Amino acid sequence: MKKEFAVIGLGRFGGSICRELIELGMEVMVIDKNEEKINEFANIVSHAVVGNSVDENVLKSLGIRNFEHVIVAIGLDIQASILTTLILKELGVKKITVKAQNDYHEKVLKKIGADHIVHPERDMGKRIAHHVVSNNVLDYLELSDEHSIVEIKASTRLDGHTMMDLDIRARYGITIVAIKRGQDIIVSPQATEPIKENDVLIVIGADSDINRFEKKVMS
Amino acid sequence: MKKEFAVIGLGRFGGSICRELIELGMEVMVIDKNEEKINEFANIVSHAVVGNSVDENVLKSLGIRNFEHVIVAIGLDIQASILTTLILKELGVKKITVKAQNDYHEKVLKKIGADHIVHPERDMGKRIAHHVVSNNVLDYLELSDEHSIVEIKASTRLDGHTMMDLDIRARYGITIVAIKRGQDIIVSPQATEPIKENDVLIVIGADSDINRFEKKVMS
Ligand SMILES: Nc1ncnc2c1ncn2[C@@H]1O[C@H](COP(=O)(O)OP(=O)(O)OP(=O)(O)O)[C@@H](O)[C@H]1O
Ligand SMILES: Nc1ncnc2c1ncn2[C@@H]1O[C@H](COP(=O)(O)OP(=O)(O)OP(=O)(O)O)[C@@H](O)[C@H]1O
Ligand SMILES: [Ca+2]
Ligand SMILES: [Ca+2]
Ligand SMILES: [Ca+2]
Ligand SMILES: [Ca+2]
Repeated sequence: MKKEFAVIGLGRFGGSICRELIELGMEVMVIDKNEEKINEFANIVSHAVVGNSVDENVLKSLGIRNFEHVIVAIGLDIQASILTTLILKELGVKKITVKAQNDYHEKVLKKIGADHIVHPERDMGKRIAHHVVSNNVLDYLELSDEHSIVEIKASTRLDGHTMMDLDIRARYGITIVAIKRGQDIIVSPQATEPIKENDVLIVIGADSDINRFEKKVMS
Repeated sequence: MKKEFAVIGLGRFGGSICRELIELGMEVMVIDKNEEKINEFANIVSHAVVGNSVDENVLKSLGIRNFEHVIVAIGLDIQASILTTLILKELGVKKITVKAQNDYHEKVLKKIGADHIVHPERDMGKRIAHHVVSNNVLDYLELSDEHSIVEIKASTRLDGHTMMDLDIRARYGITIVAIKRGQDIIVSPQATEPIKENDVLIVIGADSDINRFEKKVMS
């Protein structure tokens, strides 16, 4: 059976979730109290409904409890976000993800049983901070407080060198798990593979070791 | 020399960038027209200024052109965001990152020379979509349109198995580059390492192959 999702609130965040879910081949129902928003999405989703989600009867009549996962993407109106989550919970929805505006909002959402709480602006802010600190860091995945996987753009200084002659593992304690070269991804590259300028190195390791590597070898 | 950053606009996005930059040991100047916001950050940043960034003289007198990188995190007031970017560009700021509200806003920002444009709500929406589609996928890093690194929670079905007996490389074409086990990260695990329930597998490969692996082995 295909998973079915419902997205409540079609702001930039909810709208983006909805579009990506559809790209991933999912069935999505959307609910927004704004008719213009609903018209914008009516052609791409399975079911688009103009309605106020704080009205229990609206959610009930849509059979919301049969959905696999409901995402509450109401932003400014914190009260509506909380009340909607409460109703979803009472109707027996299994998985609820909610966008939070601030710490207070998050605390209440946790108390009433939201399964997953997201702070889009805050989380992207953290990501962007890492990006701007190093011109060579393109993107990263935080594995733990102290470990990450980082995409590092190879500088001219690395051009032609191999992992072996740079002695990366021993000197920095990090591992290059892949190299992105144009459209190609070389997974688990050989230690003798020459690095080229503009390669993107996918590096795993402790943050401090990765930083050391960046500083020594880059810019 | 330490890099110096300026953040204009201390909403959730700009505020989060600012806090993370400081955690990363950077010097940050912040500008917001709202005095309350400035008071909130005054203790943690090098320099906190109440001011309107569309006023060229404000930016000039702060020596904004000497900053390595300026982040414009003004949201709702698109006109102020554009005008600020224009002034920064004219004053000769080397790197400018700007938050965009929509495609039109992005287009204008590109035309006037913003170096990097971000859509926090949209980008997080995409990430969250991937997260909700698979209950086992905790996070991911998109390497290209078709390749990713994905954090997958090991299900009971994997408990006690090794990569060797699962024949992961040959059957799925994917590679487990690391295993997260509690606070530990095992980089480049041996093929004979037994996987435990609640391990997080860090997997690299083509999206379609990773999906196949998830579906077969998970849930
Ligand atoms: N009670 C409600 N029932 C249904 N839809 C609602 C309700 N309250 C708000 N919405 C819808 O939720 C959407 C997002 O809300 P809002 O614009 O306040 O959030 P936001 O955080 O500014 O969004 P963004 O994701 O763009 O940052 C809007 O389209 C709005 O019409
Ligand atoms: N012209 C300006 N000069 C200085 N600061 C400004 C200017 N215009 C807006 N700001 C500040 O920028 C901050 C962010 O703006 P706003 O709240 O509109 O963005 P937002 O997109 O809703 O924020 P977020 O979604 O990141 O919370 C606010 O603190 C506001 O005071
Ligand atoms: Ca960290
Ligand atoms: Ca927002
Ligand atoms: Ca990327
Ligand atoms: Ca993709």
